[in-house]
Amino acid sequence: VSEVPDGIDRNSCLAADMADSLRPLRDRFSIPEGTVYLDGNSLGPLPAGAPARADSLLGEWRDRLVRGWRDRGWMDLPLRLGDRIGSLTGAAPGQVVVCDSTTINLHKLLLGALRLAAPRHVVLTEAGNFHTDLYAASGAAPLLGAEVRRVARENLAEALDDSVAVLLLTHVDFRTGEMHDMEALTRQAHAAGALVLWDLSHSAGAVAVELDECAVDLATGCTYKYLNAGPGAPAYLYVARRHQERLDSPLRGWLGHADPFAFAAEYRAAEGIRRHLTGTPPILQLAVLDAALDAFDGVDVQALRARSLELTALLVDLVDARLAGSGVEVVTPRSPERRGSQVSLRHAQAYGLVQALSARDVVGDFRDPDICRLGVAPLYTSRVEVWDAVEAITIVLEAGEHLDPEYATRAAVT
Amino acid sequence: VSEVPDGIDRNSCLAADMADSLRPLRDRFSIPEGTVYLDGNSLGPLPAGAPARADSLLGEWRDRLVRGWRDRGWMDLPLRLGDRIGSLTGAAPGQVVVCDSTTINLHKLLLGALRLAAPRHVVLTEAGNFHTDLYAASGAAPLLGAEVRRVARENLAEALDDSVAVLLLTHVDFRTGEMHDMEALTRQAHAAGALVLWDLSHSAGAVAVELDECAVDLATGCTYKYLNAGPGAPAYLYVARRHQERLDSPLRGWLGHADPFAFAAEYRAAEGIRRHLTGTPPILQLAVLDAALDAFDGVDVQALRARSLELTALLVDLVDARLAGSGVEVVTPRSPERRGSQVSLRHAQAYGLVQALSARDVVGDFRDPDICRLGVAPLYTSRVEVWDAVEAITIVLEAGEHLDPEYATRAAVT
Repeated sequence: VSEVPDGIDRNSCLAADMADSLRPLRDRFSIPEGTVYLDGNSLGPLPAGAPARADSLLGEWRDRLVRGWRDRGWMDLPLRLGDRIGSLTGAAPGQVVVCDSTTINLHKLLLGALRLAAPRHVVLTEAGNFHTDLYAASGAAPLLGAEVRRVARENLAEALDDSVAVLLLTHVDFRTGEMHDMEALTRQAHAAGALVLWDLSHSAGAVAVELDECAVDLATGCTYKYLNAGPGAPAYLYVARRHQERLDSPLRGWLGHADPFAFAAEYRAAEGIRRHLTGTPPILQLAVLDAALDAFDGVDVQALRARSLELTALLVDLVDARLAGSGVEVVTPRSPERRGSQVSLRHAQAYGLVQALSARDVVGDFRDPDICRLGVAPLYTSRVEVWDAVEAITIVLEAGEHLDPEYATRAAVT
Repeated sequence: VSEVPDGIDRNSCLAADMADSLRPLRDRFSIPEGTVYLDGNSLGPLPAGAPARADSLLGEWRDRLVRGWRDRGWMDLPLRLGDRIGSLTGAAPGQVVVCDSTTINLHKLLLGALRLAAPRHVVLTEAGNFHTDLYAASGAAPLLGAEVRRVARENLAEALDDSVAVLLLTHVDFRTGEMHDMEALTRQAHAAGALVLWDLSHSAGAVAVELDECAVDLATGCTYKYLNAGPGAPAYLYVARRHQERLDSPLRGWLGHADPFAFAAEYRAAEGIRRHLTGTPPILQLAVLDAALDAFDGVDVQALRARSLELTALLVDLVDARLAGSGVEVVTPRSPERRGSQVSLRHAQAYGLVQALSARDVVGDFRDPDICRLGVAPLYTSRVEVWDAVEAITIVLEAGEHLDPEYATRAAVT
């Protein structure tokens, strides 16, 4: 039997859960009994209010038909939900809009930023950035004669020279869970004369994000991870008010027009954040997003962050204590200010480990080549689940379940 | 009392409906009793199977969580549903994918086509094209040093010179309901060395579209009009197989990568139509689209087209007979091969007319400045509804209901 940190056992975890004032938030989700779900950083669970909201939207569609656009407020959803996300990410109203996907929003914002910052012509990013960020940049930059410069994380500051138009970073690294210092990097980018574009996909909803306070220029993120809006739910984007008038999106569409229903031949961008709308918004997904955001009602983001850090610290401590010598290595930073809301473990058979855990209903995910990601969501993850996950890893590794030949061939995971 | 065409009255319409073998298709939709819905060309009605499908998807999300991507086939939906739409638009499998919005797909395809056709540098389009098409072109073209040439419909052929890279047209005009000759214009574009990109938003699902047979290069369209997939449902795009290998999308995203889960730093476009995927697909909307396409199961597109033409002809005949001298003018072409699946009426107080009809639960829509659009959907519109709509127009105009001061100020409509 491995050693555990002083005074921590399953019962103490249970007791701490019961004493936790945020514990009832879990009831805002429908999580299958018996599943230890540590993959909310890939796809958040079903919010309890989502089915009723979806049903209600389908009823509006059935009964009101096209009139729902006007008399059920459908057309207002992108901005109204944008403001709700703004309140979770430290953005004052009128700076966030829900639209398209993270990928498409990266295109819009990169193209807009490159035009704004010309003759600067470099998108500076981290070599280990999430791939859709790298791909979007590699597709967008050449359209404006710009280029992408990918450097290692530790060389970002020195690469910020006067050719850099925009610094493109993901707040929390999808693979390691390492968190950038948003305030410091934004300040450094500004000192170098560059704009900064943050991808919040792996942070918003679990980590305190302060877009206005950090003087961020641009941001985007998905809503299906810690915001729990369902598979492929729409994304959002943020443009700081000071840039809104000058930042154009070349991805023009009718709903970004100043007067969409005038059907004017010439494009005239809407005022404010609305100009980043393109096509018709996906109302059913937006209704579910609305229900998903209800799960944050009355919740203090700083308290969520504190709970997240407590859970990830517990996970790191238990891995250290119980998995020493098992070939498992914690790759997520131990220092709280550099840690997002996940703990990533390196293991030579990480793929098999993730599959064997899943067979035991402990759901994490695998990231190539050797990472087992365990996401912690402060709205619903409990201490006893963290305990049970480490217990399951211990059993899997001791029993060699991760070496099952079935896991020799990898299937795609998201 | 106005005169009506020989032998046509409300009872004869009812009798013809009863004798119509396609009449039972209406039961595949949930349409409110008493509503005459003639705006399916803006937003189709709720397919009867949609609520159960949405509920089932929410259940998959709840129970399978992130594992749904693999074991519930979510990841296959964009291509599987693309093929289903292909079967309605004359496209052999592997050429259509469901993704993003019509607006975003226009961007992708225009940028791809402009690159493919360089040094040709003109997007030729019709001055009266739908506005998101005009706006998308005006945003995309300058990114590649190209320009947009907008000409009147009748001057398209002569404007097809050797500078034209791509001819961008909407198959059925949103305002007048006039239909282009897809085969002839595609042939003319090819003869001039240009590619052609068709927007099918106002035709697919109600008009027989033969993409392969017409040798179309590129197409896109929405799914919320005659395909009935709900407000803001995702769009689709078509790339003829002969172009797929050479046509790149600069709007790169992770799901368009040849191996998305390898998380490779360098972008490598997937084979085939899959490369036009960008971000994570919106699964709930796709599930509802799947249910919506079920309404076409076993239905012959040519039979639908025949029924649509019969309904629009009846509408035109009744308007001619009963509204002569009322200030109403039919602007939709009377010749069947030039008519889509709507009848547009011009009237000086068209806005008031549409509102007064809506108050009587006859739902059409208004298009600036003076058009009342009445859309006919062969899956569910009946002859007696056409009769009742014309009857309602007669009453509204005779009673002056359209002159209600309440309608003096226009509200936005979609």
